[in-house]
Order: sequence, then C-alpha cells, then structure tokens
Amino acid sequence: MSKPAIISVAITGSQPTKAQNAAVPISLAEQIESTHAAYEAGAALVHIHVRDGDGKPTSNAMLFAEVQAGIRKHCPDMIIQHSTGGRGRNAGERGSCIALKPDMCSLATGSVNFATIIYENPPQLVEDMAKAMLENAVKPECELFDLAMLYNTRSLLDRGLIKGPAHVQFVLGIPNALPAREKVLDFMIEELAEVLPGATWTAAGIGRGQLEVNHWALKRGGHART
Amino acid sequence: MSKPAIISVAITGSQPTKAQNAAVPISLAEQIESTHAAYEAGAALVHIHVRDGDGKPTSNAMLFAEVQAGIRKHCPDMIIQHSTGGRGRNAGERGSCIALKPDMCSLATGSVNFATIIYENPPQLVEDMAKAMLENAVKPECELFDLAMLYNTRSLLDRGLIKGPAHVQFVLGIPNALPAREKVLDFMIEELAEVLPGATWTAAGIGRGQLEVNHWALKRGGHART
Ligand SMILES: [Zn+2]
Ligand SMILES: [Zn+2]
Ligand SMILES: [Zn+2]
Ligand SMILES: [Zn+2]
Repeated sequence: MSKPAIISVAITGSQPTKAQNAAVPISLAEQIESTHAAYEAGAALVHIHVRDGDGKPTSNAMLFAEVQAGIRKHCPDMIIQHSTGGRGRNAGERGSCIALKPDMCSLATGSVNFATIIYENPPQLVEDMAKAMLENAVKPECELFDLAMLYNTRSLLDRGLIKGPAHVQFVLGIPNALPAREKVLDFMIEELAEVLPGATWTAAGIGRGQLEVNHWALKRGGHART
Repeated sequence: MSKPAIISVAITGSQPTKAQNAAVPISLAEQIESTHAAYEAGAALVHIHVRDGDGKPTSNAMLFAEVQAGIRKHCPDMIIQHSTGGRGRNAGERGSCIALKPDMCSLATGSVNFATIIYENPPQLVEDMAKAMLENAVKPECELFDLAMLYNTRSLLDRGLIKGPAHVQFVLGIPNALPAREKVLDFMIEELAEVLPGATWTAAGIGRGQLEVNHWALKRGGHART
C-alpha cells in the first residue's frame, strides 16, 4: 500500500440489539466511550447510528447532537459521519442530522432489496439529502448497495448535487443486495476509476463477510470499515 | 454466432402512449395484428403488456387472456410471455396473468430506482410470483435491472423457486437503474456463466440505447429484444 488506509468504525449499526450481544454500545455514553477506545486504537472515522430509549433505531437529531458533542470532546480530530439510513423513516427525519454539520453523512444513492424489505431511497429523497449536505458543507459518503448506485453517484456529480472528488462505500454481504464477492468488488473499483476519476472508496462487509471484505479492500489500497 | 438468436418483440411496453406515437399498438386487435406482422417477419417471442380503456397500463387478466388467445390463433408456435411488471399495482394483480399459463412470464428479482420512482419488487412478492409460475409450469424470464438481481436469481434457484437452467434478461438504459454500457453487459454475462452455469440470456436496451444493446447482445451470442 502506498498511502495510509483510513480505518473507520461503525460502533452501533442499525440492527444489533443488547439481547443479541450485550457488548453492543447502545446508550449515548456507551457510544462515546467505545468510539473513544477505537480512536485510541487508531480509528480515524466513526459512523454513527442512534437508538431511542427502547434501543430501537431512530433518526432523532437531538441524539445525534449529543453523541457528536461527546466525540468532539473525547476524540478531537476524529471524522464524524452520521447515518442518514432509516428503514421506514421519512425523508425529513432521515436528513435531520445533516444540519448538525458533522464532517460527513452517509447517502444511499438508490434503492435495493434487503432480506425482507425494500431499502427505500427514491430519487427525490436522494436529491433532497444531497442538497442538504451541500448546503451544510457536509461531505457525503455515497453508500453503494448495488451497481446502479455507482452511476447514480456520477449523475449527482453531473447535476451539481455533490462535489467532486466523490467518496463512496461499497457495501457487500446484505442478503438480496450485492454479495460479498471479490469479483464484484474488483469490477466496482474498475468502474469507479473510469466513471468517477479521483474518487476515494472504502468497503464494508456486512455479517459473515466483514473481515474478508476489509482484507480485500486494504489489499487494493482502499479504506476499510470495521 | 453458432446458434440462432431468438428475436423477441415487446409490441406495446408499459409506457408509450398514442399521443407520443400513433403507431403504438394499444387496442387488443392492434396488439394481435402487430404481433402477427412481427411473427411473419421472424420474431419468435412476444412480450406482452396490456392497457385499459384509457390506454393506461393494467394487469387485468381478462385482457391478457384475449391477447393470448388471438396470438395463439394467428401465430401458432410463437412464445408468449406476459409482463408481471406494474408500478404501483399490488402483488395479486401483477401475478394474475400467470394462471393463464402462457409460455413465459417476466419476473423482476429485486427492486431498483427508475427515473422518478422505486420499481418495487420486495422479496415476498418475488417469491410469491416465482411460486405461482412454478405451479403453473410457466417459465420465468428473470429481469435484471441491477446487478444484485443476478445473485437473487441464483438464490431463487437454490431455494427451488425456479427451475434451472434459468433464463434472464439484462435490462440496460433505464435512468437510475443500470446504464446501457458495454462493460456492464460484459461483466453480467461473465457473472451469469459462473453463478448460473447453463443459463440463457437476452438483453434489452431501453430508450436511446436500444439498437446498440441489441447489437452487443447478438455479437456475444445472446438473444435480442426489439
Ligand atoms: Zn472518553
Ligand atoms: Zn450505517
Ligand atoms: Zn393476423
Ligand atoms: Zn415489459
């Protein structure tokens, strides 16, 4: 590798529960402290999801604001990235964390099936969230759950809705979306270089493929998310 | 080319209107006669959409039944394929043509954005329609609007919901779904050969890319849809 890789942590995610794994940080204090530990271990970026009082995923901006403040305090130069994901939640809610002006926010650039549902990111929502990020000087991490989302990212750039060079994350291993398959990653990297020259990328493997995808990404000079 | 290509016609489609193009066959009689003309010109397969009295797309099984009867009569050995597509229509409606036991039905194996909407094919709908086709001995043409749908087709096969060898159609050129890009077609053909050995395929270019995609497909030994 010729350049240092940025190691990102997604400390909580939108799905795992305490019942499944008692170590999952759910409370704001837990999230801040486990981010701090990851920061001290060398993580440069944190991808944040928040949960409500019942441990259910939410897009509540107040909660994002608290985690953001805690991380800014404990991990001064860490890159903070909020998730705008949110199965079933409406557009206004999903984008409410953008106004907090974190360094980055995630931006899924299309729709795809997940295991039992459609992960809904209709064209108007994608456009509205990209605009809000532009207005708040928040850098989008374009989340590519399927191949068309790569070309959609180019289209956002062409329409002035995101600034170049783009930054994308290949997300592999979600059932019904792209599998954790090395050839798929290779093709997407190749296409990215042609379609979005200068773009940076990271790869995330969901579930069983996590470590394998990190390994493929680092081998290819990409960044990795744990 | 070592084997004869099957030329398919989609005589009506779900979108074009008489206002845009007076030559688009909309009435049942028009559809039957233009299929007859294509049959005499060498088309072996017809892909059918039907419209209601106002020219709007519908999934009404009575209309499919009439077109099917007319084509069986005028074009005895033509392969009849009904569309189970239907933006905004419910699952029961969309699959109602399957019980007519045409030779084939289309089956989108995932969801993706189109220009302004999500083309919604949630996992349960895909499964239900595949099952109905299996029960009615209707061969599915798996419509691949994005890459994940290729692996989803394999998953349907593994779960016994479709019979091998699978038959797929690569659909390129719909805004926000896969672009009409030769490298994308090449990669999908390569992946198909590995993931679904023995599968047959056809390619359709939507809009401006139509002729180009046909040309790419025939050059690679695939079938083409006009
Ligand atoms: Zn601390
Ligand atoms: Zn996330
Ligand atoms: Zn006739
Ligand atoms: Zn169709």
